[in-house]
Amino acid sequence: MNFLEAKIAAEGYVGQGNILKVDHFLNHQIDVKLIFQIAEEFKRRFDGRRVDKVLTIEASGIAIATLLGHLYGVPVVFAKKGATANCTDDKYMAEAYSFTHKRMNRVFVSKPYLNAGEHVLIVDDFLADGQAASALISLVEQAGGTVSGIGIAIEKGQQQGGQLLRQRGYHLESLAIVRSMDHATQTITFAPQSASH
Amino acid sequence: MNFLEAKIAAEGYVGQGNILKVDHFLNHQIDVKLIFQIAEEFKRRFDGRRVDKVLTIEASGIAIATLLGHLYGVPVVFAKKGATANCTDDKYMAEAYSFTHKRMNRVFVSKPYLNAGEHVLIVDDFLADGQAASALISLVEQAGGTVSGIGIAIEKGQQQGGQLLRQRGYHLESLAIVRSMDHATQTITFAPQSASH
Repeated sequence: MNFLEAKIAAEGYVGQGNILKVDHFLNHQIDVKLIFQIAEEFKRRFDGRRVDKVLTIEASGIAIATLLGHLYGVPVVFAKKGATANCTDDKYMAEAYSFTHKRMNRVFVSKPYLNAGEHVLIVDDFLADGQAASALISLVEQAGGTVSGIGIAIEKGQQQGGQLLRQRGYHLESLAIVRSMDHATQTITFAPQSASH
Repeated sequence: MNFLEAKIAAEGYVGQGNILKVDHFLNHQIDVKLIFQIAEEFKRRFDGRRVDKVLTIEASGIAIATLLGHLYGVPVVFAKKGATANCTDDKYMAEAYSFTHKRMNRVFVSKPYLNAGEHVLIVDDFLADGQAASALISLVEQAGGTVSGIGIAIEKGQQQGGQLLRQRGYHLESLAIVRSMDHATQTITFAPQSASH
């Protein structure tokens, strides 16, 4: 197990309905040393890729993105979301269905903050069905930019997001891919990763 | 002018109705080098204060809080907000009126992430009427913790939040205090700060 898998196995909690709770260290309280390790590992895995900017989505992706922007020495942009955001000329906008909140969210970035020719590394804390990641990809590509890669802390391997993004040809790196979870036994298993990881 | 005042004077935009727009570097696109300087300056100004944890509120406070947590080597917690959040036994909850969205927001932190005896440094990007800061103070004090201080990047000096918090005896440090703004001339003036700053 790598450092993040070990942390999830030791401190993650499997809630009713097989919901993985990691708000002790990832998305409510933030273990900054762990997030720094996550950022360093993304930088290692995307070594050689051009990265002009880091893009994430509010709120829990911001900590990872900030430390990664610090390591790369590049700006960070966080996309905003709102069910009621208006479509205006000054924003790039995409839609992402939230299974958690059971509604369509609009995801947007003001136009000056994504530009043609930029190589943008997308990061987020979770990947499940891929709705948020696909929306972020759309924003980069609407602006005429290139997706350098997609860095995810925890991929829910039982859902289809990772497979869809890989099939579309994106360079996706997930530091922990959850293969199964069991509430009754509090067991979490991970998909094996290639040796270079 | 200090580094943040100089950045605001050079790159801030005064919108209609004297709204200060700094989303080029603070709260949509993030100039990580600037945020790192902000975090270092907070650490200098709160030198000698005990800090066990850094607390902020989603979303735009998270970048500052993360880098400050990195400098102190302590965890970060971000309070969540939602008009519809339910009052439950497992959360500390406070109310904050949003003048921007013209509604009462509930602000909450899950109980395990704020504890009795902890000294908590509160940080945020903006201080206007003090609603958000007061809600964060309430959460710390509900848990039996102590507010080490309140670090704010930009205080809107024409609004009452800063005065109210100082009158209540909190150690408030605002790196830039905007005294006046003018949309027509794009002029921004700052309140003078004491020599030690």
